This record gives sequence, structure tokens and C-alpha cells, in this order.
Amino acid sequence: MSSLSAQPPLFEKLAIIGCGLIGSSIARAARQFNVTRSISIYDAQPSVMERVQALNLADSKIGGIGHAIEGADLIIICTPVGACGRVAKEIAPFLQKDAIVSDVGSVKAAVVRQVTPHLPTHVHFIPAHPIAGTEFSGPDSGFSTLFQNRWCILTPEQNANASKVQQLALFWEGIGAKVETMSPEHHDKVLALTSHLPHLIAYNIVGTADDFGEQTRSEVIKFSASGFRDFTRIAASDPIMWRDIFLNNRDAVLEMLGRFNEDLSALQRMIRHGDGDSLSAFFSRTRIIRQSIIEQGQDTPSPDFGRQNQKKTN
Amino acid sequence: MSSLSAQPPLFEKLAIIGCGLIGSSIARAARQFNVTRSISIYDAQPSVMERVQALNLADSKIGGIGHAIEGADLIIICTPVGACGRVAKEIAPFLQKDAIVSDVGSVKAAVVRQVTPHLPTHVHFIPAHPIAGTEFSGPDSGFSTLFQNRWCILTPEQNANASKVQQLALFWEGIGAKVETMSPEHHDKVLALTSHLPHLIAYNIVGTADDFGEQTRSEVIKFSASGFRDFTRIAASDPIMWRDIFLNNRDAVLEMLGRFNEDLSALQRMIRHGDGDSLSAFFSRTRIIRQSIIEQGQDTPSPDFGRQNQKKTN
Repeated sequence: MSSLSAQPPLFEKLAIIGCGLIGSSIARAARQFNVTRSISIYDAQPSVMERVQALNLADSKIGGIGHAIEGADLIIICTPVGACGRVAKEIAPFLQKDAIVSDVGSVKAAVVRQVTPHLPTHVHFIPAHPIAGTEFSGPDSGFSTLFQNRWCILTPEQNANASKVQQLALFWEGIGAKVETMSPEHHDKVLALTSHLPHLIAYNIVGTADDFGEQTRSEVIKFSASGFRDFTRIAASDPIMWRDIFLNNRDAVLEMLGRFNEDLSALQRMIRHGDGDSLSAFFSRTRIIRQSIIEQGQDTPSPDFGRQNQKKTN
Repeated sequence: MSSLSAQPPLFEKLAIIGCGLIGSSIARAARQFNVTRSISIYDAQPSVMERVQALNLADSKIGGIGHAIEGADLIIICTPVGACGRVAKEIAPFLQKDAIVSDVGSVKAAVVRQVTPHLPTHVHFIPAHPIAGTEFSGPDSGFSTLFQNRWCILTPEQNANASKVQQLALFWEGIGAKVETMSPEHHDKVLALTSHLPHLIAYNIVGTADDFGEQTRSEVIKFSASGFRDFTRIAASDPIMWRDIFLNNRDAVLEMLGRFNEDLSALQRMIRHGDGDSLSAFFSRTRIIRQSIIEQGQDTPSPDFGRQNQKKTN
């Protein structure tokens, strides 16, 4: 795919390993925003590769993993976190000198531990995590604007090659993201709070409802607009991806869960003792965070996430 | 406001006491769908009454609570649950014979206990709860289609006048809702699970984040698209309304919270012991409920609640 714009693409060949929601969105975005001259894709599942071909997501012909990696100057591992080490080992023999190897995993310290030992010293491993996604999975669910106005966190080693880090940052900015850099450990702590704990809680409350008998379960579904349904969206995310996140960010998740449990015990006590003043003070405090999220463009202020079936008519 | 349709309106005069999101939405809907000949509104807050006048939500001139109730054959109390008893006492002297008194409270047994003793025996108290709302409050946030395709639960006494119950059901159906009938106690148990517990959990996790220092808090907001922001919407709901719900549905909420805590301990244990099989099995199970909610039209299947800033372009 040749470039028609004034600037040449940032990369000659982008290789995407693992083509789910994120991998396929990167492929679509990279093509649309012209940040690479060509794209190759490999996925271990034949059914996924069939969709890649049908959707015409890659430029090069479909082949083995070595074929996908060959000549690539940017390789992004887009598998669940638990598979990153194995993928690194598989791609290592085919990596060309000075290539950038990156990933999109939701945990970073564990990925660094698993990937680094397998890579040759002549490549640059720069972990990344785009904070973007939907509750859907698989190559068909991706779209080119997924990363627009979303953050992508890079967690390079302290002695990483600065120009390579810059090149990867430009790639993410080129497909619409805003880039921030931090240590893998700090990333894992922040994401444990903003992402991993909320998902765990959402999975848990949906599970609690599911444990009831058939009648209650059907009533829960019927009356879910009263709050419950907001939790079901993120509890519908990919189970394997989330298993791997909890297994690989265990300590930070358990710490956040400990804090959450302490706070919940305090709320429980207010309810049991009928402490209305403390309850309303608590519920007032939490409104401010919502306002900040909307002001910073990280969510929409349209009521009910704008999901009313009907338009507001007066 | 005279009717132009073939059928006469169900009611002569609807009086709405308390004009927030729900009260003002009922007023708008009742006018649009022509289910009452006229509408009066009373709210104890002068600032709210100013908005009622500016928005032209009522037909009759603004006056005291007696003026609003006088001649009304349907009175709907739309205040927070904790104020229902006081309102019932205030309106009692003005209620005409055979009027229907109803409410919109999110708990029912406590409302019945608080309201019934104050009402004269010549009126019909039929509690109701429309399962609809947004995270916004106040008369300006209402809209006429809020109840479309949403459930409204009626909890009449066993010896309630059947034709009055039917008339109130037709009112709610007339403004777009689907009506279901159950006992106050069953309502409170089901809603503790579908609504009160999710709100409590959402308030709690937002509070946990708020307890961190300024730097972490700003990172939580920045990276909230990773899951956290879904919780902030319902944690931005009206604090007084929610205080009253927890104070008035204490036992059912504490029971559901107990179950939630047990389940969370089990998940915590799976994470601590690295039990990946149990985690992925658990996360797979919860997807099914999401699917049912979408199939029954209680939520939208558009990715991410359809809140991408950008359109899907390929």
C-alpha cells in the first residue's frame, strides 16, 4: 500500500500477532491513517485467519508466523497477556535487527518478565497498553477509530532507546491516541484500580445474580435498567483475557480489593445503623469524580450513556 | 388542555408532588400522551417551582400544596422515599373521595408503612415504581419518553379496588411503560439485587478511588475508560434519593450485600491461589446474562453503549 501523503509512513512493515478486537483495530487504523507501508497478521486460530482474509485486514499473503514477522520493523503482540511469553519465543528467530517489539497487554510488569528473556538483544522491546476497547471480541469487532482520544501508556525500560520510544509514540498518536509514559509497576497499580477492580466487581455482581433461581434471574434481567445492566457490559468482556489479567496482576488487584472491602464494610455499617448523614455525604462526594471524567472527554454526558431507544422530544 | 383524540383522558386532574427527574418526566409524558385533562405540580423548593413555571410543565396556576391537590383524581408523590410519609400527612385534608394516591419510590414496603396511616379511607393508595431514570436530577432533566419500553411495578394491597388498579395501570401504559404487579416485599427484594446493590457497589468503588491522593485520583480520571467510568454514571445519582433508599430497604440490601461479599471472597481466593480455570469459567458464565438483557430490549448492544465519539468507519 503506497502512501499518497507528503510524509512517508513511520514503519515499513507492521506485524500484528493475535487478531482480536485490539489487533484488528490496530490493523484498520494503521491502514487508514497511513502509519505503515504494509501490514501482516498472524493468529494461531485458523478461524480467525479466515476472517482476517475475508475482511482484507492484511496486505501480505497469509502464511506462518515467520512469514508475518519477516522484514517487519514493528511487531505488536495482541494476544491475551498469558500468551505473550510463548509468542515472544516463537517470533524471536525471525526478528530483524533494530525492530521494535511491542504489545497491548493490560498488565505490564508480568509481560516484561515473560517476554524479555526470549528476545534477542538486537531488538527494542517497548511495552504498550492502549486504554481502549469494547465488550466485544474477535477480528470482526474491531474498527479504525477505536483509539481516537484514548490514552496509550508506554512502559519502556529506563535505558530504552529514546528514538525508538519516540517512533512508537508517533505510531500511536498517528492512529489517534494520546501517549503517556510510566513504569510497568506504576501502570499495574493504576490499572488495578481503574480497570481490574471494576471488572472484578462487575463480574462478581453478575455472578451473584446468576446464582439465584430461574425466577429471580428472569426478574433481574427484566428490571436490569435500574442499575444492574451497567455492570453487565464490562462483565461481558473476553473471559480468557480477564483470567490472564488477574493471574498476572495479582498483588496490585488484591491490594485494591482490600481497600474496596474496607470501604464497603464502612458503608454496610452506615446502612445497618441508619446513619443517613454519613450516607448522603458519601454519595455527594462521588459525583465530583463523574464530572471530572466528563470534563476530560473520557465519557459522554448524554443521560444514560445516550442509550434511550427514543429521542428526547420535549 | 382539552383532548383532541377520540378517547377522553383517563384522569381529570393529575397532581404531581415533587418535581425532579421523575415528576417532571411524568408531567411531560402525561401531557404528550393525553392521559389527563390537566396537570398541577407542587414542590416544596421555590427554585424548583420557578423552573416548573419557566418550563410550562403544569396547566393550573402555581399555588400551595392544597391548591395542587384540590379536585385531583390522581395524585403521584414523586419526592425522595424518606419524604413520602410527611407528604401524605400534608395532602390528606385535601384529597377528594375515590382519588388514587400513588408514588414512584424505589422501595415499597417502607413507603406503604409510612404513607398508609395518614391517608383517609375514602382514597385508594396504590404504590408504584417506574424502573426508569438517568443519572441527572431536577425538573430540567426530565423528558416525555423516559418511560418508553420500561417497566413500572405496581404493589397494590391484596384487597385493593381492582378497577382503580387497572386505571393506574392504563395511565402508565398510556405514557409508554409496561406494567407488572407484585407484593411490596417481593419488589424490595428484587430491586435490592438489580438496583440498590449495584448502586452501593458503584458508590463504593468511586469512593475507594477518591480516597487516594491527588495524583492517583487524576490518573484514575484520565484512564477511566478502562472500566471505572461505567461505575461513575450511576454513582452520580441523587444523594438524598439514595440515602433514603438504603435507610428504607435496609434488610434486603444487607442480605444481598452478604451474598455479594461471599462471592467476592471466593473470587479473591481464586486470584490469590492462581486458579485460572475457575476464573475463566466464572467470567464465561456472566456473558449469558448480558445477552438476555439485550435480547429483552433492556439495553443497547451497540459497543461501549454507543458512546464512541467517532463513528465506526470501517
